[in-house]
Order: sequence, then structure tokens, then C-alpha cells
Amino acid sequence: MNYSKRIEEVRKLIITKGMDSVLINSPHNKYYLGELFSNSGYIVITKENQYILVDFRYFEEVKSKNNLFEVILLSSQNTIQKHLHSIIKEEGLHKLGFEGKEISYDFYQSLQESIPCKLYSLDISKIRSIKESIEIEHIEKACNIADVTFQHILSYIEAGMSEETVENELVRFMKEQGGQKESFDSIVASGVRGALPHGKASNKIIQKGELITLDFGVKYNYYCSDITRTISLGKCSTELSHVYEIVKAAGDEAIRKAKPNLTMGELDYSARQFIAESGYGKFFGHNLGHGLGIQVHEYPAITPDSAELLREGMIITIEPGIYIPNVGGVRIEEDILITSKGCCRLTNSSRELIVI
Amino acid sequence: MNYSKRIEEVRKLIITKGMDSVLINSPHNKYYLGELFSNSGYIVITKENQYILVDFRYFEEVKSKNNLFEVILLSSQNTIQKHLHSIIKEEGLHKLGFEGKEISYDFYQSLQESIPCKLYSLDISKIRSIKESIEIEHIEKACNIADVTFQHILSYIEAGMSEETVENELVRFMKEQGGQKESFDSIVASGVRGALPHGKASNKIIQKGELITLDFGVKYNYYCSDITRTISLGKCSTELSHVYEIVKAAGDEAIRKAKPNLTMGELDYSARQFIAESGYGKFFGHNLGHGLGIQVHEYPAITPDSAELLREGMIITIEPGIYIPNVGGVRIEEDILITSKGCCRLTNSSRELIVI
Repeated sequence: MNYSKRIEEVRKLIITKGMDSVLINSPHNKYYLGELFSNSGYIVITKENQYILVDFRYFEEVKSKNNLFEVILLSSQNTIQKHLHSIIKEEGLHKLGFEGKEISYDFYQSLQESIPCKLYSLDISKIRSIKESIEIEHIEKACNIADVTFQHILSYIEAGMSEETVENELVRFMKEQGGQKESFDSIVASGVRGALPHGKASNKIIQKGELITLDFGVKYNYYCSDITRTISLGKCSTELSHVYEIVKAAGDEAIRKAKPNLTMGELDYSARQFIAESGYGKFFGHNLGHGLGIQVHEYPAITPDSAELLREGMIITIEPGIYIPNVGGVRIEEDILITSKGCCRLTNSSRELIVI
Repeated sequence: MNYSKRIEEVRKLIITKGMDSVLINSPHNKYYLGELFSNSGYIVITKENQYILVDFRYFEEVKSKNNLFEVILLSSQNTIQKHLHSIIKEEGLHKLGFEGKEISYDFYQSLQESIPCKLYSLDISKIRSIKESIEIEHIEKACNIADVTFQHILSYIEAGMSEETVENELVRFMKEQGGQKESFDSIVASGVRGALPHGKASNKIIQKGELITLDFGVKYNYYCSDITRTISLGKCSTELSHVYEIVKAAGDEAIRKAKPNLTMGELDYSARQFIAESGYGKFFGHNLGHGLGIQVHEYPAITPDSAELLREGMIITIEPGIYIPNVGGVRIEEDILITSKGCCRLTNSSRELIVI
């Protein structure tokens, strides 16, 4: 993990935006910059210095891990507001950035009232979009656990089981394989529930002849995987197996196209157009994919209208889907790494329709 | 669930605070008022009407569940900002409350720019502190699952296991018993790690002669339990078993005292004073407890200086602890319901030191 480089990236960003410092409170960015994954504690980066501010619960551990930072002990006497005030005075700061998407209005208000500095909302999350090799390794491992878990669950699912039972086993098995915790609440959506893109596992009983969409992932060393497979419990209808082939081919198309300098919009279009031409355009209502890393959804979003460019080292999901109300749905999702000339898949489970 | 009463409570609160409407975005308050537990979607309560605003993913389900609300479909054309603007115009509203602790600065900013109304930060969470009987039933069930899980884990733990393995089994078993998901990341802290009040399960191997602090809970129908037990794997040191007895007696004292009209400060003092008189005052660094409900930490906080009153129907935790750096720690936590004359325990696992 190249922490000095990461800190310098933030420094470059604040200077580009005309600021001289930034206050960081989000767990994902604090982890990226200073190995602190917690809702508690702060990182402050100024033109010349960097600080981590935490209370007694985290102080010793943070200190032992972070030699690039000055580590400050917060307490009811030395609050973040008070200490930030001192830093601002000492360093003569005028323009403090803060994570406007991450900070609550009340906390913002308490800052504004207590510190002598102009405040500007700033999003620093983009600095995490190009992955270092060690980050890629963690995500590869997280994807590998997801693949092994998918293989395991195929032999576990039986007609008569509830979706929740399947979810419970997914999560248990991922942790047993060394996963830290699930990346998000797993989706297990069977039969008509497959038409709900966010059908969290319910007490619905899975029945023969139904498709089952499994969307799950695991964190490994704080990095997420995110995979979706739709399988068939016994033989499903001709229409649904036709829909499956369209979704698979749409994903194949996007994976074939993905490479540096393609716009996110072009990538989204490659799959969306294929689904539209197959006559199911109105049943694919969400984006094609999203960035993946410390957060399961992070920059970039693969949306129809985005002109942002894919770059080497980005890790994104490709997850087309077709959802037919009151009938069912299919989604197939891969995690891919953008390479110098194209991309490579990090999830390696079979993309064929598996009938169990 | 008495939804009309709950909505009226919010209406009373906004009027008391001099406002004429409120925008609610937190999942816990949206669930409490309109059975919508999601980061997405909004509830708006005005002097005369109430609305739930959601996108297509939630629309049908929300509509089928909420006949007290007008349900509005949000889309990229009909954003929350646009629709709020219409409501404000139609009803002639002037002062809109919002959840300042829950809303991001950026979202606040987008509201302020787009709606013709003054905005005021407001905390409505207090309305959830007195529980209805159905809520008590859910929490009782969640506590019951936690008790059964504690009993199960006693026969599961062995020397040589990692804390993470124990945590994995805790979570799996709670879900198997009908729990929805864990209330929070379980704490499994053995040996010297017991001195960390928030020692999340790690890869540390549990050894003979160590105390193990297990702090876990489960959601049942969206309501949380939260229990802590410290057990001994084989015989522990005389000092630690002495510390155990002090923590237990301090908790007993607080449970004996808890009743309506006692201040939170007095309740906290009852246990804190006992620990101080036993000579361990400086090793009890956190609050005595907190409210429990849809959130695992909610109003009221049982803090040393709070003059707020306990009231019949509140559910709170009582969780004294002693943490000796580099030695170990003990915490014992119960969930209690404040009754008309005292309190009753909802967690019913033995409070004695269990040696396995």
C-alpha cells in the first residue's frame, strides 16, 4: 500500500480545487489513507502536514500503524472542533474541504460555528479508482471466495428451502473461507421475486421450476467482491431460458468492449443496445455496473450518459439484467479489471445457465 | 403498530418546535412511521397530510402497506426536490424540518437551493423511546434468540479456535433461529483483547485460562437485541474473577434502581459509584447503557451527567465493564424494560461467571 502516494494525491486534489486542507471522516477514505476503518476519528491533510485524530479507543493501534501521520488524541476536552481550530491557526489555513456527501448537516454546522475558515464540500473518493497491485490481489481473493461459495451453494440449494436459509449458508460459508464479512446484504430472489432487482432474501420457499438470482459478495482485507448468478432449480420456462441467453450475451458484449479510453456511456450502451435489439429494452432499468473496491459501490458509475473514461487499473462490475414483472428475472454479474488493452475477469464462475 | 398515533406524535413535535412540516430520510424513522426500512425514499409529514416518496423499486410494496400515506412515485423527472417544491407550494408551507443528524451536507445544500422554504434541523428519534407492546414483543424475541445463542456457543467454543470462528458461528446460529441479521458486528475479545471495549472478533486464537467477552445481538422484525457475557475458558486469575464479581454487582445495583422518574445520571451513578468504591473507577470509561429498539443505539443515552428521566416503556441496556490494559476485561450487559414500578430483564442468560 503506497500511503505517501495516496496522501500526495489528496494534496494535489485540494490544491487543484483551490483549497489548502481537507477534513476526511468517511470510513472508506480513512482506511485508504490511514488504515482506519471506523465511523469514529478523522484525517486532516493540509498543504504541509497530515493528522489522524482519534479517541482513546483507537489511539494506540492507530499510532502503531501510521508513521506518516501526526496522531492526535481526541477527548471531551480536546474535541475535533477545538483541535481543528488549533491546526488552522498554526498553519494559517483559509479554505478547508470536507466530504459533503459523508458529513451530516449537524456536524457541518458545528464545524462552521467553531472554526475560523471557509468550508467547501469536496469529493475525494475518485482517487481510489485506479487500483494498486496489492488492492487488486485483495479483490481477486474476495472474488475467489465468492466463486468457491457459488460452487458450494449449488450443491446446498434444494426445493422447499427458504431464500433466507440459502442466504444464511452463503454468508456462513464465505466467512469460513476467510472472508471478513459480506460486502452487502445478499440477494436471494426466486421465481417471480427475481423480477425485483433488489430482492433481499425473504422467507419465500424456493420451488422447482424457478430461477433463483443470487447476488452476493464478501470483503477480504476490507476489499469487496460482488457477483451475481441466476440458476434454475429444475427446468425453467422457454421464455426465461431465452432471456438468460440474452443477458449472458449482453454481458459478453460489454466484457469484449471494455478497455481504457472507452467512455462509461459507450460501455453501458454495448450491453443495453443488445438487450434492446432483442426486444427486452424496457426490462433493463438500472445502470450496467459500478466501481468496486473498499466500497461495494464506488466511482465510477457505468451509466448510459456518462462521458467519463475507463482507465487501466479500474475495477468495475458488469451486470446487465432483465426483469419481467410477475414472471421473473435474470441478472449475471462479473467483476472485471481494466488492463492496458482490454479487461480481465476477476470472477470466474461459469456464465452458462446451470440447472440443479 | 399504531401508525396514526406515531404520525400524530411527529405532528405534535413539529408544531411544538414552530415548524409546519418535516422531511424524514433515516431508515429507522421511515420504518417506524411507514414500514420502509431503506436508505432510499422519504417521508414528509405536514400539518395536514403525510406522504411517502419512493422510486419504482419500492413503489408497489410501499403502496400496498401504507394506507395512511399518499404514496408518490419518484423518478429522474420527479425528483424529491421537485416534488417537495410542489407540496410546499400547494400547502403553503414555510418552515420545513429535516433530520440534521441523518442528512448529508450535500443533500441539505441541494434542498436549500431548490425549495422555497426555510429549513430547520430537527431530531424526531425521541418519539421512538416509549415502546408499544408489539415492539416489546419483537425485542423480547430478539433477546430470546440471543439467550439461546449464548447457550449454544458455550458448548461450541474450544481452546485453539480463533475469535472469528466463534463470531461466524454466533451469527450463523442467530439467523438459523429466525433472526433477521446481526444487530451490529459481534465483539469476541479474548485474553488481553478483553481490555478493548470494542474488540471486534479478530484472528487471535483463544487460549485456556483466558476470559472471553462476547457482545452480540440480533434483529427480529427490525428490532434489536444486544447482550454481553464474559466467560472463562478454564480457570482464570483470581484478580479477573474478582473483577467479574464487581461488574456483576454493579449491574445488579443498576437493575435494582432502574424505575420511572429516576434520571439517567442517577442510574449511571448507581453502577459507576459501586465500581469506583471497589477501586476500579478509572477502568470503566464508557456510559452505563443506551436505548434499544429499531436502532441498536438510540435515545436515551445513560450517561453520568444526563438529567433526562427514565419512563415506563423505555427499553435500555445496562452494561458496566472494567477494562485493565494489558490484562483483560469484563463486561456484562442486559436489556431491560422500564415498568411502572421498576424494570424487568429481557435478556435472561445467567449472570454468574461461567467456566467452560
